[in-house]
Amino acid sequence: MQTKNDLQTQLDFAFYPKSVAVIGTTATTALLYNAGNLFFRTVLEFGFPGKLYAVGKSGGELLGHKIYPSVLDIPDELDYVIVAIPNRFLPQLVEECGQKGVKIMHLFVSGFGEIEDKSGLVLQDEMLRIAHKYNIRIIGPNCMGVYCPGARLTMAINFSETAGNVAYMAQSGGQCIIGVREANQRGIYFSKVISYGNAADINECDLIEYFTDDPETDIITVYIEGTNDGPRLFRALKEATSKKPVVVFKCAATEGGTHAAVSHTSAIAGSNLTWDSLLRQSNVIRVYSAKEMFDVVTLLKRCPPPKGLRTLVVGHGGGSCVQASDDCCRSGLNMPLLTQEMRQGLMNVYLTDAGNIFKNPLDINPFFGLDKAREAFKVVADWERADAVVFVASPEQTPFVPREFEYKIQTNTLMELARMTTKPSVIVLNMNTVSQDDGWPEKSFKRLIDQGFAAFPTVERAATALNRVYQYYQRRKNHSQ
Amino acid sequence: MQTKNDLQTQLDFAFYPKSVAVIGTTATTALLYNAGNLFFRTVLEFGFPGKLYAVGKSGGELLGHKIYPSVLDIPDELDYVIVAIPNRFLPQLVEECGQKGVKIMHLFVSGFGEIEDKSGLVLQDEMLRIAHKYNIRIIGPNCMGVYCPGARLTMAINFSETAGNVAYMAQSGGQCIIGVREANQRGIYFSKVISYGNAADINECDLIEYFTDDPETDIITVYIEGTNDGPRLFRALKEATSKKPVVVFKCAATEGGTHAAVSHTSAIAGSNLTWDSLLRQSNVIRVYSAKEMFDVVTLLKRCPPPKGLRTLVVGHGGGSCVQASDDCCRSGLNMPLLTQEMRQGLMNVYLTDAGNIFKNPLDINPFFGLDKAREAFKVVADWERADAVVFVASPEQTPFVPREFEYKIQTNTLMELARMTTKPSVIVLNMNTVSQDDGWPEKSFKRLIDQGFAAFPTVERAATALNRVYQYYQRRKNHSQ
Repeated sequence: MQTKNDLQTQLDFAFYPKSVAVIGTTATTALLYNAGNLFFRTVLEFGFPGKLYAVGKSGGELLGHKIYPSVLDIPDELDYVIVAIPNRFLPQLVEECGQKGVKIMHLFVSGFGEIEDKSGLVLQDEMLRIAHKYNIRIIGPNCMGVYCPGARLTMAINFSETAGNVAYMAQSGGQCIIGVREANQRGIYFSKVISYGNAADINECDLIEYFTDDPETDIITVYIEGTNDGPRLFRALKEATSKKPVVVFKCAATEGGTHAAVSHTSAIAGSNLTWDSLLRQSNVIRVYSAKEMFDVVTLLKRCPPPKGLRTLVVGHGGGSCVQASDDCCRSGLNMPLLTQEMRQGLMNVYLTDAGNIFKNPLDINPFFGLDKAREAFKVVADWERADAVVFVASPEQTPFVPREFEYKIQTNTLMELARMTTKPSVIVLNMNTVSQDDGWPEKSFKRLIDQGFAAFPTVERAATALNRVYQYYQRRKNHSQ
Repeated sequence: MQTKNDLQTQLDFAFYPKSVAVIGTTATTALLYNAGNLFFRTVLEFGFPGKLYAVGKSGGELLGHKIYPSVLDIPDELDYVIVAIPNRFLPQLVEECGQKGVKIMHLFVSGFGEIEDKSGLVLQDEMLRIAHKYNIRIIGPNCMGVYCPGARLTMAINFSETAGNVAYMAQSGGQCIIGVREANQRGIYFSKVISYGNAADINECDLIEYFTDDPETDIITVYIEGTNDGPRLFRALKEATSKKPVVVFKCAATEGGTHAAVSHTSAIAGSNLTWDSLLRQSNVIRVYSAKEMFDVVTLLKRCPPPKGLRTLVVGHGGGSCVQASDDCCRSGLNMPLLTQEMRQGLMNVYLTDAGNIFKNPLDINPFFGLDKAREAFKVVADWERADAVVFVASPEQTPFVPREFEYKIQTNTLMELARMTTKPSVIVLNMNTVSQDDGWPEKSFKRLIDQGFAAFPTVERAATALNRVYQYYQRRKNHSQ
């Protein structure tokens, strides 16, 4: 057994390698359909500054780079290899990598423990035996490997070059990629991302321990289907959450999902009840999709911790405000009523309550002007009975105003008001399922993100995330007392 | 008391008027901020083919049309008026409309029963007394009125000119407009839409009875906050659902929502438990947002009734398939396992299960080509243990393929497969919260809609709608037996 620090060192070679080889490139096949070539091109174009080698039996050239027939032909030291050749060649490859002194290998290739034919598992064990002989660590097999923007290393196109402080580890390659894109598009950036597939060698416990101690990582996010070591995972998660928030999307939580997971990553999913209690007792924030995961991260990064669940809802439009209130309350938030004094203060601003709601929700028509909106919000901004503020824009409800104008005035008004409070606050921009071709919903949502607000597309998602984050802080406080 | 047929006749005047006057237009105020002018312009530009009159004290002209100082000055008969003048002028206006022989009035104006000051209710009663004297029926007050594409009459810009067979009645004007746009953008069109606000005269029961007998309407959709006559509403809904599906978005279902609703439309929301039982016993399909409402309508219009909840999931990508399975099962669907024979059939197509899942979910990689996908789906297309098929595309998971190509191949493949089954089937296009600027997610989603498929942005929403629609058909069958 290795000590933890050995593994840490070796994982560092995957995230920050000095030299990388892609195994399975070729000079002959059409570029689009060869995984090795695609990995090589993607890492190259992402601007990896270290040494990048193409390896493949064909020899020749790929994108102006020599293709080496074997890793043994590479003239320099080699830290990290990305493997995209058929499974049957793996034992020999690992042997050669051992001789070459490779530290860590990412196996994109599938056809090991996850397939129904038992030969897959036999092959996996054989490969691991050789790897252990040479002290090589294995990521995967059957996974996408590593994305580390700080090292300019990537597993996919359209990933941000900006580095952040969120780590993401995902048993599924697809969920890993979906999650990174979901996050990047919402202004969330990563320290290190790893898709770990079958977890034949490096497993979920190793990775949680690694990210717990990783100084680049302040928030850990996890997509997981199953584990082979529940007790160790529990200890690792508990230790992690005592240092930083951990958000877990546990999938394969139903009968259908469990069947799928076995075929996908050979994961033994385990009972959902067991998982639920494991995750709750380790104070993990549990979510049910990548979207919900980065809803929670958005709040963790963009809002101070809410002190309670009492929520002030500020929106426009009666029906929208009624629905926003329902969605907040149904998601576990409370909505205390404004005091009579505050209501009088609001009446003094607008002179009438016709067409407005002055209760909580507070319905402010942005078309009465920014000054009136500011004056009205001042009445409630410091309300000691509100722990958080949910601002709601519903531009699709407007009968006559051109869309560009409507989207601008609603988002501008709510951003102005949100800047007036120090409470945790979110801005919800209600969007329809399919928007019109003008792109205003998307453009407006991006403006909210770019200006640093915690932006959500529905009240339900914002309220659910607020509740989850509150519960997490609350449990952490109770635990540390 | 009027007989039902009298009210029907009068509502027909609102949906198909020969002549309309907009009260509250002016030649002097800036166009953008005057509701009367906006209504006039919007109806005019929507192409209303009947006689359209502008009425306002200023006289003069609006968009080349004479502004009449009073309805009494209009030279012809007048069926229907849209009212956008301050509440205090209403008694006199209704009196003049009575003398003019107006059949039905839409009161956009607010400041009646819904405001806190009791004077609002006094004014509302006074106005109704005069209306009843002249046998005028009132829509509202405090609402958006009527949208009837067949009559080229509208309440808002950006509404479709295409008529359909869905009626929508909404207590909230904003929810009414959001709903119409949500539906139109998803290929759902309306027979008649009405926003009825305070329901001071024509109420939710009247409207449900009207749409139950309306030959243009095959599906009734409802946004409602409260009622003053639960027993009559129950009878009306029961009668309606015996003839056509009724989908109800009951809002103000929580404490927060209830407070909001009183200020919004003066609605007494009532306890959510009471509503839940009322809606269930009347076999209404209950939903919790406009999006969910048109999710259900999408299924009602685009799929045959599912015979059960046993579902086959067909997707691509392990993690996506696992999540899709979880989301289906969590939403109440079942996923029976494929038979050993079928699994063998699938192995025969792909030769290996490495990188595929052959269980249910069925994971088919579209990059193996359309022929293989077709061949594989043939193995399961007529499976007697599946009552419905959920197809899932997840283009955002792809590492290397350019987005345009990925979105096209995934949607094309699933559309091809969906055409191969006669079972109720839906296509889910998983989209991230914010998409990239190229618009491919939206374009692809619209293609699915335009080609007639039941398209959804998440498996959860598709599965929830499938479950709801199944329960509705099931109860209807049990009831008619």
